[in-house]
Amino acid sequence: MFDVIAFDADDTLWHNESLFQETETKFEVLVSKYSTDDVNNFRQRLFETEMRNIRYFGYGVKSFTLSMVETAIEITDGQIPAAEIGQLIALGKAMLDQPVQLLDQVEATVAELAADSYRLMVITKGDLLHQQNKVNQSGLTDYFSHIEVVSEKDEPTYQTVLNKYGIPPQQFLMIGNSVRSDVLPVVALGGQAIHIPYRITWQHEQTVDDGHPNGFDRLEHIGQLPAYVRSRRHQSPTSYSVV
Amino acid sequence: MFDVIAFDADDTLWHNESLFQETETKFEVLVSKYSTDDVNNFRQRLFETEMRNIRYFGYGVKSFTLSMVETAIEITDGQIPAAEIGQLIALGKAMLDQPVQLLDQVEATVAELAADSYRLMVITKGDLLHQQNKVNQSGLTDYFSHIEVVSEKDEPTYQTVLNKYGIPPQQFLMIGNSVRSDVLPVVALGGQAIHIPYRITWQHEQTVDDGHPNGFDRLEHIGQLPAYVRSRRHQSPTSYSVV
Repeated sequence: MFDVIAFDADDTLWHNESLFQETETKFEVLVSKYSTDDVNNFRQRLFETEMRNIRYFGYGVKSFTLSMVETAIEITDGQIPAAEIGQLIALGKAMLDQPVQLLDQVEATVAELAADSYRLMVITKGDLLHQQNKVNQSGLTDYFSHIEVVSEKDEPTYQTVLNKYGIPPQQFLMIGNSVRSDVLPVVALGGQAIHIPYRITWQHEQTVDDGHPNGFDRLEHIGQLPAYVRSRRHQSPTSYSVV
Repeated sequence: MFDVIAFDADDTLWHNESLFQETETKFEVLVSKYSTDDVNNFRQRLFETEMRNIRYFGYGVKSFTLSMVETAIEITDGQIPAAEIGQLIALGKAMLDQPVQLLDQVEATVAELAADSYRLMVITKGDLLHQQNKVNQSGLTDYFSHIEVVSEKDEPTYQTVLNKYGIPPQQFLMIGNSVRSDVLPVVALGGQAIHIPYRITWQHEQTVDDGHPNGFDRLEHIGQLPAYVRSRRHQSPTSYSVV
């Protein structure tokens, strides 16, 4: 029923949120030296800064780094030394330098779907350069017809991408770890989506979830995807059920 | 001879470099309070940081802001107070908040070319979100079939864009203020390009230029474009000459 399969990238093809959380731990340790505030609130304050800054900076490591610097200044009432702020920027660069670590079975899965003649795409949000670098590093580039880096994953954005490549929504299947960004807007447009949770979900991507997805399926693991796709090939989308 | 006309955005459709230079002046004033170094070297040091950081951060205001912070820490040997670093981030946000100021005659020119049935595009590098916001704000969106934000403007990137939309290079005309980014890679691919200089050029975009462009034309002003395009409509590209 679908001939284009699009993948989210971060936490769907490769590890990402875990790296952010490791960096947040380093942020806590560094900033707590110059603040008497409760270190348990630091992550929440950083998150609030990120949300406030999205309209300026969007998503990705550069935005996160700028928000770390801003939050560190706030939390320490300006007492953090400049050299330590330099360390926060170095943490951001280390994130950008981190080699891509594919999730289990990603390569075999993507290769199998490509061999089955599906047109494969990546649709990811974040820093343009960083996302492109990660795709290039992943070794998966040749499997994908198109790599789309977008600034937000909402209905208008998906509609723009579908229009651009002349893809009818009912022939489009999106795979991703975020119900909010990868599933709901696609389903709303009449496309199909599969949710494959990562072991941790960024607070911003968390949605109310009663465990009974409506209009989309959930798989535990990307390795289950080829069999899922084959079994659905000749069924109508309305027959979908929770896996 | 061409049916797709693509425009660079910054300093071709709207003012940009002037805003960077104004911010650099504020950077100098702010940082010079905490340094005994010669303020005349500050811009060059900032530029060197930007160049060193391009592989991490790419182009755009967020990258520039991170490089301002890093350079300020270096120039002041870590003596700049955190609150002042907060001011540098505020300068970055002010740049992102700056309303788009179209260059003279841009709107009329784009409208006229669209009315002449050319397919118009924007190809720009920089922050994805910021560039999209500027296009949306510009009031020009409806004239463009496609907006491409890219991380680098080199031959492989232009080739990818042309392939994506099935545009033969010989039917493609690129318009921009940078010989390095908007003209040379397009000409190398067999496309056509017109250089329209902005009153100032970022050091990174400066190229050796003997005043006799080879294989491309130069216009003084974007308002000259419709007449240029009309006059070239039935000529072979090899007959191009310096305007």
